[in-house]
Amino acid sequence: MATDFILYNYFRSSASYRVRIALNLKQIKYDYRAVHLLNNGGEQHAPDYVALNPSHDVPTLVHNGKPVAQSVAIIEYLDEVEAYCPLFPREAYKRALVRQACEIVNSGVQPLGNLRPLAELTKRFGATDDQKKQWSQHWIEYGLETLERFLKPNAGKFSFGDEVTAADCFVMPQLFSAQRFGVDFSKHPTLSRIYETCSKMDAFIAAHPDNQPDTPPRA
Amino acid sequence: MATDFILYNYFRSSASYRVRIALNLKQIKYDYRAVHLLNNGGEQHAPDYVALNPSHDVPTLVHNGKPVAQSVAIIEYLDEVEAYCPLFPREAYKRALVRQACEIVNSGVQPLGNLRPLAELTKRFGATDDQKKQWSQHWIEYGLETLERFLKPNAGKFSFGDEVTAADCFVMPQLFSAQRFGVDFSKHPTLSRIYETCSKMDAFIAAHPDNQPDTPPRA
Repeated sequence: MATDFILYNYFRSSASYRVRIALNLKQIKYDYRAVHLLNNGGEQHAPDYVALNPSHDVPTLVHNGKPVAQSVAIIEYLDEVEAYCPLFPREAYKRALVRQACEIVNSGVQPLGNLRPLAELTKRFGATDDQKKQWSQHWIEYGLETLERFLKPNAGKFSFGDEVTAADCFVMPQLFSAQRFGVDFSKHPTLSRIYETCSKMDAFIAAHPDNQPDTPPRA
Repeated sequence: MATDFILYNYFRSSASYRVRIALNLKQIKYDYRAVHLLNNGGEQHAPDYVALNPSHDVPTLVHNGKPVAQSVAIIEYLDEVEAYCPLFPREAYKRALVRQACEIVNSGVQPLGNLRPLAELTKRFGATDDQKKQWSQHWIEYGLETLERFLKPNAGKFSFGDEVTAADCFVMPQLFSAQRFGVDFSKHPTLSRIYETCSKMDAFIAAHPDNQPDTPPRA
């Protein structure tokens, strides 16, 4: 029997990685469907896929035949339909702070380094690969500094205290982006501690871009 | 007596406008504190303000002395602390769709037209004012097309059916941005209908950038 949850996603996509972490933390089994963002002119533009996701992007969760896109919306939804391992604290103000951390990554930093704006930088301003890398590094640096300042007062082993929350689902993919673009985060003690904790957990390891069905074999 | 709610914001900021709509819909009275994003090198960088908002941006809501930033986190918080005029439907899947609409604006489009990336376009690529305007227009066009496709099947007078939701708090400021940058949305019937409905409502009128304490007088 097919599982009730299907995740359309891409191994290296930061937003896909967030949702995989949440699904794993909640021990929800799902069908993995790869959507290659570069092959065939971008499989996210295929009409069948756009019918599920009008933004032409990943990830899209399909639950009992019904699609939801946008990582924030998906993770909030998962938290509402699966009580195991709650990803938001009970108290409204603490929930707000967790959501604020998620959004520092989700809307504050990550959109600027996406494939779409990078392609426009080349098209409009002739940006070279090196200039695009520097652009991405700039926003990642900025995001990590903001996160470190914001998380420091409340962090424990995780972004908020000693329990995993949705914030960790956003912070870890952001730290992966930092590694990928050569941005050192060892100067940020809070982020380094969160990284140490999460990178040892099965839910995070199984969600990592290196370990997906569509991850290319290592050279 | 001071109200319990203080909103640090800027009349023209799209994210500030969203939160003002939500506060007005919920009939929450608040102290308006203007943070001018351009004057004095940007008042969002003042140390006292950064202590409230580590992202150096607007808006920031302070409720009973405790700060929350990021428009999504603030609006979810307001919905949890004030039951009047719920901004999210009760059913989990419908809530997910409302959040998806919010994020199409919040993370999909709006970050690309912010002051910060526009300044970097000039610094790194020598972008002219005209090129920056075209850049903003491009992302607004893209966002409106996505919103129209996504909202069409479920929209009524509002973004979802005939009840106002958080989605309308995000769609209306996006349509204001479209007007400001000369992007015509009359070709999108769903968005035009939502605009017609909301632009007649007191909560939206009072939140409009033209009607704030820090709005400059008209020439």
